[in-house]
Amino acid sequence: MAAERDPEGRAAARPLLTDLYQATMALGYWRAGRARDAAEFELFFRRCPFGGAFALAAGLRDCVRFLRAFRLLDADVQFLASVLPPDTDPAFFEHLRALDCSEVTVRALPEGSLAFPGVPLLQVSGPLLVVQLLETPLLCLVSYASLVATNAARLRLIAGPEKRLLEMGLRRAQGPDGGLTASTYSYLGGFDSSSNVLAGQLRGVPVAGTLAHSFVTSFSGSELPPDPILAPAAGEGPGVDLAAEAQVWLERVCAHLGLGLQEPHPGERAAFVAYALAFPRAFQGLLDSYSVRRSGLPNFLAVSLALGELGYRAVGVRLDSGDLLQQAQEIRQVFRTVAAQFQVPWLESVPIAVSNNIDEEALAQLAQEGSEVNVIGIGTSVVTCPQQPSLGCVYKLVAVAGQPRMKLTEDPEKQTLPGSKAAFRLLGSDGSLLMDVLQLAEEPVPRAGQELRVWPRGAQEPCTVRPARVEPLLRLCLQQGQLCEPLPSLAESRALAQLSLSQLSPAHRRLRNPAQYQVGECLPWCPALGAPTPPHPRSPPLLPAGGAVGEAAGPGGQSACGGVPLSLQAGLPGNKTSHLLTPQLVLLSCCCSPGPRASRAAGVGNLSRRVCIPGKAQVLLGWETALH
Amino acid sequence: MAAERDPEGRAAARPLLTDLYQATMALGYWRAGRARDAAEFELFFRRCPFGGAFALAAGLRDCVRFLRAFRLLDADVQFLASVLPPDTDPAFFEHLRALDCSEVTVRALPEGSLAFPGVPLLQVSGPLLVVQLLETPLLCLVSYASLVATNAARLRLIAGPEKRLLEMGLRRAQGPDGGLTASTYSYLGGFDSSSNVLAGQLRGVPVAGTLAHSFVTSFSGSELPPDPILAPAAGEGPGVDLAAEAQVWLERVCAHLGLGLQEPHPGERAAFVAYALAFPRAFQGLLDSYSVRRSGLPNFLAVSLALGELGYRAVGVRLDSGDLLQQAQEIRQVFRTVAAQFQVPWLESVPIAVSNNIDEEALAQLAQEGSEVNVIGIGTSVVTCPQQPSLGCVYKLVAVAGQPRMKLTEDPEKQTLPGSKAAFRLLGSDGSLLMDVLQLAEEPVPRAGQELRVWPRGAQEPCTVRPARVEPLLRLCLQQGQLCEPLPSLAESRALAQLSLSQLSPAHRRLRNPAQYQVGECLPWCPALGAPTPPHPRSPPLLPAGGAVGEAAGPGGQSACGGVPLSLQAGLPGNKTSHLLTPQLVLLSCCCSPGPRASRAAGVGNLSRRVCIPGKAQVLLGWETALH
Repeated sequence: MAAERDPEGRAAARPLLTDLYQATMALGYWRAGRARDAAEFELFFRRCPFGGAFALAAGLRDCVRFLRAFRLLDADVQFLASVLPPDTDPAFFEHLRALDCSEVTVRALPEGSLAFPGVPLLQVSGPLLVVQLLETPLLCLVSYASLVATNAARLRLIAGPEKRLLEMGLRRAQGPDGGLTASTYSYLGGFDSSSNVLAGQLRGVPVAGTLAHSFVTSFSGSELPPDPILAPAAGEGPGVDLAAEAQVWLERVCAHLGLGLQEPHPGERAAFVAYALAFPRAFQGLLDSYSVRRSGLPNFLAVSLALGELGYRAVGVRLDSGDLLQQAQEIRQVFRTVAAQFQVPWLESVPIAVSNNIDEEALAQLAQEGSEVNVIGIGTSVVTCPQQPSLGCVYKLVAVAGQPRMKLTEDPEKQTLPGSKAAFRLLGSDGSLLMDVLQLAEEPVPRAGQELRVWPRGAQEPCTVRPARVEPLLRLCLQQGQLCEPLPSLAESRALAQLSLSQLSPAHRRLRNPAQYQVGECLPWCPALGAPTPPHPRSPPLLPAGGAVGEAAGPGGQSACGGVPLSLQAGLPGNKTSHLLTPQLVLLSCCCSPGPRASRAAGVGNLSRRVCIPGKAQVLLGWETALH
Repeated sequence: MAAERDPEGRAAARPLLTDLYQATMALGYWRAGRARDAAEFELFFRRCPFGGAFALAAGLRDCVRFLRAFRLLDADVQFLASVLPPDTDPAFFEHLRALDCSEVTVRALPEGSLAFPGVPLLQVSGPLLVVQLLETPLLCLVSYASLVATNAARLRLIAGPEKRLLEMGLRRAQGPDGGLTASTYSYLGGFDSSSNVLAGQLRGVPVAGTLAHSFVTSFSGSELPPDPILAPAAGEGPGVDLAAEAQVWLERVCAHLGLGLQEPHPGERAAFVAYALAFPRAFQGLLDSYSVRRSGLPNFLAVSLALGELGYRAVGVRLDSGDLLQQAQEIRQVFRTVAAQFQVPWLESVPIAVSNNIDEEALAQLAQEGSEVNVIGIGTSVVTCPQQPSLGCVYKLVAVAGQPRMKLTEDPEKQTLPGSKAAFRLLGSDGSLLMDVLQLAEEPVPRAGQELRVWPRGAQEPCTVRPARVEPLLRLCLQQGQLCEPLPSLAESRALAQLSLSQLSPAHRRLRNPAQYQVGECLPWCPALGAPTPPHPRSPPLLPAGGAVGEAAGPGGQSACGGVPLSLQAGLPGNKTSHLLTPQLVLLSCCCSPGPRASRAAGVGNLSRRVCIPGKAQVLLGWETALH
C-alpha cells in the first residue's frame, strides 16, 4: 500500500512518534523470528473520565490517516540504527524499510459513538512487529481526542441545546497539534464552532471570532481612517461617514443613559467604527476594554445605531471579565430600553457572548433559566480538561498466533481480558441503551429477543437480559490496509454523538454521581455442553478455585494460555490444595470495578476467569474469594 | 526574508494556526489604514504555575522557527477569503500574501531562564497587523512549553540530582505535537531522557526504553528462536544457547530462592531470552507481567546470570505496578544475596527502574533516603501537568505608534502595564537573586552598586535595594526578522535551567508555600525633577487620587494615554471630586497580587498608576484605596 497523498499536507503523526521500546521490542521480535506472527491488540480505557458514566470515541480518522501513510523513511531507519546496538543485523533495518500497514486490519467504534470501560475503541490485528509499533501513535491519536470530545459533550449537556458554544483554547493547548486536535474534537463533542482557523481549513470546523482588547486599545481616537464612508446595506443611496454618524448617535445614547458625553473612550469608539467599516454585516463590540457601562456599551450602541440607519444590524457584543451573568442581564435591559427609545426592535435581541475562564460550574450558572447570555466561549476548560487531563487509554495484546494472551501483574485492575472479542450494545424496546456486552469473536452473535446471561463487570453474579435490539459495536474499518467504507464526515460524527447521548438514560448521562452503565461478559455458548448454561458462582463448580491476588496461582499465570496444563492453588487461604487442569481456552477475565484494596476488604473476588475444559464444561476460577 | 529550509521538515506551526479574530482584526486594521503602525506586544504570565514561585521560560526556539518561516500560502489566503465578508477589498488579500516577519523584532528571556509573573517572556514589535496575527501561535508555542519545563523542573527538584528521570508521556499528550513538545521541554526542565523517538530524531533529546508487557505476554515458551546462540561479549570463544543456559541457571536460582522450578512463567523467560539475544549489552527485565517474586525476578536472574557467563551485564529491571518502593527494596535484597551466592558482584547494583502513574507525592516517596529505586519513568504527571494544565500566558499590546497602551477591564488583575519596557534581574554579592525589576525602555539602565527605589508588585510602599550585579533579562533575538545570535542548543538551555534554579534561594525554590519572588517597578528617573525621587504613597501627592475598581475614572480610562486630558474622580468613596490633569506619559501600572475581591476586603489598592505631569513631577493615582 503506497502512502497516499495526504489532504492535510502531512500525516497526522509520523511513524517515529512512538516510544523507543516499540522499536527495541521490534528488534526483539525480529531476532526471535516472530515479526510476522499474527497478533491482535485492543485499545480501550478502564474508567470513564471526569467521574462520569460515558465517553465518546474519537480520533479514528486520524488513526486511519496515520495507518494508511505509515512508512518509515530512510532518515527514520537511520535514526533508529543510531540508537539500537551497533552490531544489529542490517537485515532488521531492511525489514523496517519495507514495513507498511498493508497487512493490518482494524475494527473500531465509529467516531462519536458512546464508549464504555473495557469495550475496545480499536481492535488492531496484523503482523506482531507492525502492530506493536503502532501502539504509541494510536494511543496518542485516540486518547486525547476521545477525552476532549467527552469533555465537550459534558459542557454541551450543561449548556443545553440552545446556547452557542465556541471553543477558543488554542493558546492553552499542548502546542500546535494539541490545539488542532482540541478544536476538531470539541466540535465533534457538541461545540458549535472554534476560533482555530486551521481547524476550519483542515477539518471543516466552523470558525468564529471578532476582535480582542488589543484591537480596541490600539486606537486612541485621534486616528483618521482613510475612508470613513460606508455605503448602505441595500447598496443604493449615498454613503455616510460612519464615525461622524456614530458621534451623533453617541449624544443621544449618552443622554438616554445619563452619561457624560466625554465618558465613553474615544479610542474604543474609533476601534468599533474601524471594525464596523470592515465588517458592516458582522459588527460585534467587545465591551470591557475600559468600562462596560460607561464606555463599551454606549460606544457599541452609538456605532450600532449608526450602522442601523444604513440598514445593517450588529451581530453581538462580547464580555471577557467581571460578573458575566449579571452584566448580561444589565446589557439586555439597556438593549430593551434603547430599542424602545429609538424604535429599533432588532436591538433587543442582539446576542450577548461571554468568555473568561468558564468551567463546568460557571457554565451551569450562565445556562440557568433567565440568563441573557447567548454565546459562550470556552478555552482552557475544554482544551486542557483540567478535571482529568488524560483518559488513560491502553493498548493490550489479547491474542498472538491464535492464542489468547493476558497480563496478570501486581495490580488486578491492570489485568487484561484475553482473547479476540466481539462487542455488542443491547437496547430495550424503547430504544434506550441497556448494556454493552463482550464475548469471544468466534461465539454466535446474540440475537434480539433472545434471553442472554451476562456477567456485568464488578458484579458477583450474572444477570439475565432480553434485548429488543442488538447492535454490533465494532465496525470493520481497515481490512489488510484497505479502507472498507468511507469514513463519516466530522459533522456526521458530531450528529452521531448527539444522537447517542440522547439514547443514554438520564441516570447514566448525569455528570455527577451517575449510575454506572454496565458492561458485561456475555456468557458463552459452551461447545462441550452444547448450551449456554454457564455456572452460577454460588453453585459448586467442577473444581474449587482460589488463590491470592497478585500471586498467579499455578505456574506463573499460565492459566492465561489455553492448552497449557494449569496448576491451581485453590481453596480458602491457609487451606489450599493443588489442582491440575488443562483449559481448552481461557475465555475472558473480569476485573471488579472497585480498586483491589476496596474489593479485598469487601470480600469481592478481584479476578475471575472462566476456562473451558474439554468435556467438562466451564469452570470459574476466583482469586481471593473462593467461589465454592 | 524568504522562508528558510526547516531542518524538521515542517514549520512547528502554520500561520493559520491562529484564532479567527486575529484575521478579522487584521482586516479591521487594514481598513483603518493602520496595518503598518508600529506596535509592541508583550507575552507574559500573571501567576507562577502549580502554586510555586518560579517558572522556566521555554518555547523560544519554536517561536523563532515559526517567525522565520511565517508566510501565508495561497491556500491559506483563499481560506481566509472564504470566511471573511465576500465584499472584502481584494487588496487586503494581496497585503496578506506579501506578509512575512522581516519587520518583526523580538526580545526574549533565553530558554531555560527563570521567569516570574509580569516579566515579559517575549517582546514582539513590528507592523501592527503582523504582530497581531502572531499572537495565538506564539502563545501556543510558549505557554505549554514553559509549563511543562517548569513541571519537569519541579519533579527534578523532588527527585534530587541522582535519580534518572525518564519522560514517557507521549501517549497521554494532546496529540502528536503535544507529545513532541512535552518530551522536548521536560528534558529542558531537568529530565534525563524521553521515550519519544521523534524527540530524539528532531530535537536531540536522549531516548530510552526497553520492553513492554505485550512483549512478555506474546511469548508462551513454546516458541523456538531461529538462532538461540549468543557469542561471548569479548567476541572470542564458542557461543552458547542462551535459552538452555538460562534454564540451567533457573534451577540454581529457584533452589536459592526456594521456588518451585515450574513457578516462573516459561513464556516470560522466553521473552527475556529473546530480548537478551537482541540486546545482550542492554538487557533489562520487565518483572511484573505475571508475578514479580515468583516469576519475573527468577526469570530475570536466570537470563542475567546466563548472560553474565558470556561477559555481558544486565542493565536493569523495571516494575510497572504494585508497591514500587517496597518491591525495589526486596529486589535489591535478592540481588545482594544472589550476587553473594553466585559471586557476581555487579548484580548487586543493577539499576531498578519504576513507573506507574507517578506524581509529585509518589516521586517524593521513591526519592526518599534509602530508596533502592534508580530510574523513574513519569508519563501522565509530567505531560498533562494535572496540577495546573495551562500556564495562562497572555500577549498584550503595550505600545502603538510610540504611545503606551493599556487595558483596564472589569477585572483589575487583567489590567496591563503600559509602555515598552526593559527588565533586569538584581543579584546580591553572593550571586543570589534579589528581585526582577521592570522600567520603561528609555530609562537609564540600573547600575550595580547603585541604590534603587523599587515598587514591588503588590506592596503598598516602595523599597530600596542596592544590587551587587544587574543582569538585563531580555535579549535581542530577532531584529527585523534576522536572527541576532545563534540560539543555544537544547542541552545548553537545560544547563541554564539547572544553573538558574541553583541561584534561587531555597525559600523561593520550595514547591509548596514558597516565599514569593519579588517583581517590581524600578521607580524612574523623572526628567522633570532631574532626580530619581518618586513620591512616597504616604506623603501627599500633588493631586488626590481615587476612584472605584472596574470604573475607569475620568473619560473611560484615557489616563492610559499620554498627552490626553484626564478627568479623575478622586477622593474617598461617596465624597469624590473631579480633577483634570494631562499626563505627559503613563509610566507603568501595577496590580496587587491578591485577587480583586481579597484586596478590596483588605483595603489594598487594586491599581496604582504613576503619571508624569510636565513640570510637576510624578503623581500616584490609586483606585479603591485613596492614597492621600
